[in-house]
Amino acid sequence: MNRFSFNQATARDWPVPDLLAGCAAAGVRWVGLWREQVAEYGLERTVKAVQANGLAVSTLCRGGFFTTGDWYPSNRRAIDEAAALGAPVLVLVCGGLPAGRRSLDAARDQVVRAVEALAPHASAAGVRLAVEPLHPMFAADRCVVCTLAQALDIAERFDPETVGVAIDTYHVWWDDTLYRQIARAAGRIAIFQLADWATPLPAGALTGRAMPDAGCVELSRIWAAVDDTGYRGPVEVEIFNEDVWSWPGERALSAAVAGYQAVRVQLRAAGRVSSG
Amino acid sequence: MNRFSFNQATARDWPVPDLLAGCAAAGVRWVGLWREQVAEYGLERTVKAVQANGLAVSTLCRGGFFTTGDWYPSNRRAIDEAAALGAPVLVLVCGGLPAGRRSLDAARDQVVRAVEALAPHASAAGVRLAVEPLHPMFAADRCVVCTLAQALDIAERFDPETVGVAIDTYHVWWDDTLYRQIARAAGRIAIFQLADWATPLPAGALTGRAMPDAGCVELSRIWAAVDDTGYRGPVEVEIFNEDVWSWPGERALSAAVAGYQAVRVQLRAAGRVSSG
Repeated sequence: MNRFSFNQATARDWPVPDLLAGCAAAGVRWVGLWREQVAEYGLERTVKAVQANGLAVSTLCRGGFFTTGDWYPSNRRAIDEAAALGAPVLVLVCGGLPAGRRSLDAARDQVVRAVEALAPHASAAGVRLAVEPLHPMFAADRCVVCTLAQALDIAERFDPETVGVAIDTYHVWWDDTLYRQIARAAGRIAIFQLADWATPLPAGALTGRAMPDAGCVELSRIWAAVDDTGYRGPVEVEIFNEDVWSWPGERALSAAVAGYQAVRVQLRAAGRVSSG
Repeated sequence: MNRFSFNQATARDWPVPDLLAGCAAAGVRWVGLWREQVAEYGLERTVKAVQANGLAVSTLCRGGFFTTGDWYPSNRRAIDEAAALGAPVLVLVCGGLPAGRRSLDAARDQVVRAVEALAPHASAAGVRLAVEPLHPMFAADRCVVCTLAQALDIAERFDPETVGVAIDTYHVWWDDTLYRQIARAAGRIAIFQLADWATPLPAGALTGRAMPDAGCVELSRIWAAVDDTGYRGPVEVEIFNEDVWSWPGERALSAAVAGYQAVRVQLRAAGRVSSG
């Protein structure tokens, strides 16, 4: 369990202090936190509660949305919040097309400019920016960075300690170039996230994620490829799912741990040693 | 209007004879037909009605689903039906993961084997197989061929007159390598289809298409790139949309024509001459 991280989005409505205490009680070492929930409970109180529970923060989610209005001050604050929480990584969901616009090229150029603008502050704060490719079904409204190759094209413009990539199985599993791109990402993987794909998709597509091993993704194969790059960091379980959100937090955590363990069993069955 | 083709899926419930007469009355020259509707009305009757209305069939939709059971006889029949209808193209939706399986590699290998098995019969029948990349959100349940690059990797194993690709804007618009791949597809484009992307996606994701110019896709840019390859064939409007399906057929046809014309106006405004 030493690599398992419970991403707060999985139990969205579990109050922060309960979530942190619940993780500690379950023997979890890492949590991935979200800005909205942290702000609601209070940044300083969250920092104290994380420490009091002996936890470490794997990522802060999320910065980004660079293609709309006021992205710069908001993202500077996100970097500062990550630093305050001791989160080594700020995950960037880079934003979709601006309202009424159609140029993917322009939106993608804007993402590069935004990362350029934020990199010095991130570097000074000791926070690594993680460009996250989102599934192409989110290209219009959430993220014009649609593949790991594209995320790497952006990240490779920068020092790897300052700008890396987030690999979330849910977003990248379908890609026939995936394993080549994961190998290319060696030294750039800022966080690895596990979520499974199940059909049919719900309306809006956002909340269709399934617990690890409850869908059709070759999660253990992807995990092995990520480990092959030398990545030994936390493995977050991040599930947006209306059904899971309706559960008590403890149940969501238990299910996330069970899914993670199921994938680890597959890793071992494939002869892969995992330190997780 | 000489390149406009009305794909039957846009007015799914319009009876075949009414649809064909409606297209003729509207000055439409091409129709894209679906096997289910053709079978329901009867293949021979459909052939006669197409001829009686002075129409030509741009494509028959669809063969494929190679990763499930009885694909071979069904696809041979589909080729024969296309030939009977005078359709030069059979569109292939290649199939998703078999139930309970996770190996994309195995499913993709199966697609190649199936196209290999069908190519001789298609060639003899004078029907071109069009491998259609579907949006990656359909990788699990409809099509493991997710990008134009991947479709071309398959098609390029064969004679271009026997195996080409279908380019549907809805499926490929998000791809940052799209224009490079369209150029690569020169001589392989069996059909070009226009549909726009709108959010939010409906449940199941299948019926989220919008009429051309009603969404966020740079349709005229993609069309221009397709024409730049030398493609001068029909341009189908194919919209799966519950709202459109609730309309009378004539209204769906009018909206499809209007959307097509709107994109043509953009092509012209960009200084592009289109013969369509």
